[in-house]
Amino acid sequence: MPKPTSIILDWGTSSLRAMLVSETGETLDTRDTSSGGIQFVKNGAFEQALMEAVGEWFSAHGPLPVLASGMITSRNGWVEVPYVDTPGGIAELAAGTRKLTLQNGAVITFLPGMRDPAANPFPDVMRGEETQIVGYGLGRDRTLVLPGTHSKWARVRDNRIDGFQTYATGEVFSLLTKHSFIAKALEPQPGAEPDWQSFDRGAEFAASDSAAADAFLSAIFSARTGILDGKLKPEDILDYVSGLVIGSEFRQARAAGWFKNGDTIGIVGNNVLNSRYGRIAPLFGLMVEPAPENAAKRGIMLIAAEAAQ
Amino acid sequence: MPKPTSIILDWGTSSLRAMLVSETGETLDTRDTSSGGIQFVKNGAFEQALMEAVGEWFSAHGPLPVLASGMITSRNGWVEVPYVDTPGGIAELAAGTRKLTLQNGAVITFLPGMRDPAANPFPDVMRGEETQIVGYGLGRDRTLVLPGTHSKWARVRDNRIDGFQTYATGEVFSLLTKHSFIAKALEPQPGAEPDWQSFDRGAEFAASDSAAADAFLSAIFSARTGILDGKLKPEDILDYVSGLVIGSEFRQARAAGWFKNGDTIGIVGNNVLNSRYGRIAPLFGLMVEPAPENAAKRGIMLIAAEAAQ
Repeated sequence: MPKPTSIILDWGTSSLRAMLVSETGETLDTRDTSSGGIQFVKNGAFEQALMEAVGEWFSAHGPLPVLASGMITSRNGWVEVPYVDTPGGIAELAAGTRKLTLQNGAVITFLPGMRDPAANPFPDVMRGEETQIVGYGLGRDRTLVLPGTHSKWARVRDNRIDGFQTYATGEVFSLLTKHSFIAKALEPQPGAEPDWQSFDRGAEFAASDSAAADAFLSAIFSARTGILDGKLKPEDILDYVSGLVIGSEFRQARAAGWFKNGDTIGIVGNNVLNSRYGRIAPLFGLMVEPAPENAAKRGIMLIAAEAAQ
Repeated sequence: MPKPTSIILDWGTSSLRAMLVSETGETLDTRDTSSGGIQFVKNGAFEQALMEAVGEWFSAHGPLPVLASGMITSRNGWVEVPYVDTPGGIAELAAGTRKLTLQNGAVITFLPGMRDPAANPFPDVMRGEETQIVGYGLGRDRTLVLPGTHSKWARVRDNRIDGFQTYATGEVFSLLTKHSFIAKALEPQPGAEPDWQSFDRGAEFAASDSAAADAFLSAIFSARTGILDGKLKPEDILDYVSGLVIGSEFRQARAAGWFKNGDTIGIVGNNVLNSRYGRIAPLFGLMVEPAPENAAKRGIMLIAAEAAQ
């Protein structure tokens, strides 16, 4: 097997994901542990948690450099790394890294998150998504969307991340379908495949010319009125609401100036949501440029390589 | 005391509220019982539940006519009364009532809800709010807002309710502040008075020229970024989110065509939310016309009087 040259950590609140990678970015081995999530690490024992997860890699291959991103760099993590302000690219992110030498001599590099000081009403923040954007590539001026619990819309310009905005779409979907009047009315579908017909109905309303679709707080009530009117069945609701909420994210992102009809965007992230976002993009007149696999890993390696110079 | 002439019921899912009223609408006595809420009434024993609540009024005053509105007229209630379509006024609502004679000879009149068949993407519905609108008065062409868990924006035109739209604002506020990332960050305030300064900050952003305020799914994330930026404190969050969410309802209602700058609207309902809505209206260039007390009772009596003719 190729020679391992570094260890990459996606170290979040609920889990620690580690990859052993080669110089060319090939993933040679992985560890995935929920017990290493920072909320479970007591008394700042992060080094011990890291050793429990990947100690055998050090034993086998020596004190490899470690590259860490995610909430491990936040106030509640191991080393708080200040946000790098937009606009910023690889050089600025590399300059914002922090290093720490472990007991075994390995050097761990903590990558910074980003902050958009121009966002309204307060500066917006992200931790981790910036590595995906860098890994996607900063070479073309583009708007990118990174689907998730807290999706990001970001603009790449002049080889830098120019600005971004968070949309709490995944969280709102979860609230509506687990705790609201919608939760009471829906029935789980048989099978795991999305019901694309129901999804499309929600998305098409969000993309429609109807002024009512600008009223998100009202549009969600259609999950009830659709049932009362006999147009939706309880088993349609989950995917109808998914299409409506993600479609509303696109509608709102358009209103906020992130794209216009005819643009090409990127959808970035290794995420089951990407197929849903990709299905909605054409409803808003968007073309989608394919994203590379493992954008996050690629971005982390690019930033770390710059930081090592 | 004035002579009792009817019994008015606001009979909902979770409670039964009864008023003993005089011919002029004076409330002579009240009963309020949660055990009578339709979700607690088993095997269709609604008449028994009614007698437990107000039987002594019948004993004392004879078989007074009873006027019922609320979810008691829904599919899960006592008598399902079909919705009356907009546009519709007192005559149409009166024609849509259903009557039932009780064992003691009293006649109970069930009032219909309303349905707006022109709403998008599906016909909208309400049950009870239409009595408040009628009680407010149909004499002037106006947009009215009825704050609540599921607020209604309605238009009065030519002595009829011309159309309406539901906004699930109160429910979304509750979801955000009880179950979301916001719930984890907020701290309860000392005292029960709203923190109007925090409320205004949320409302003013919703009313601002910023395109970001059109993106509701993003705007709610400001409850986090405001704390990270040191601009909001955990004890500010509850009222900040209240101002932001209600302000967003106004912003969305404006986008959906319910009002424009300079209009006069009515805020209807006997509701603690009214002061919050009234505080936001001027931010959108709206004047507010005072609503009469007990609009619902007044509306029910007007519809019932027409139905009795």
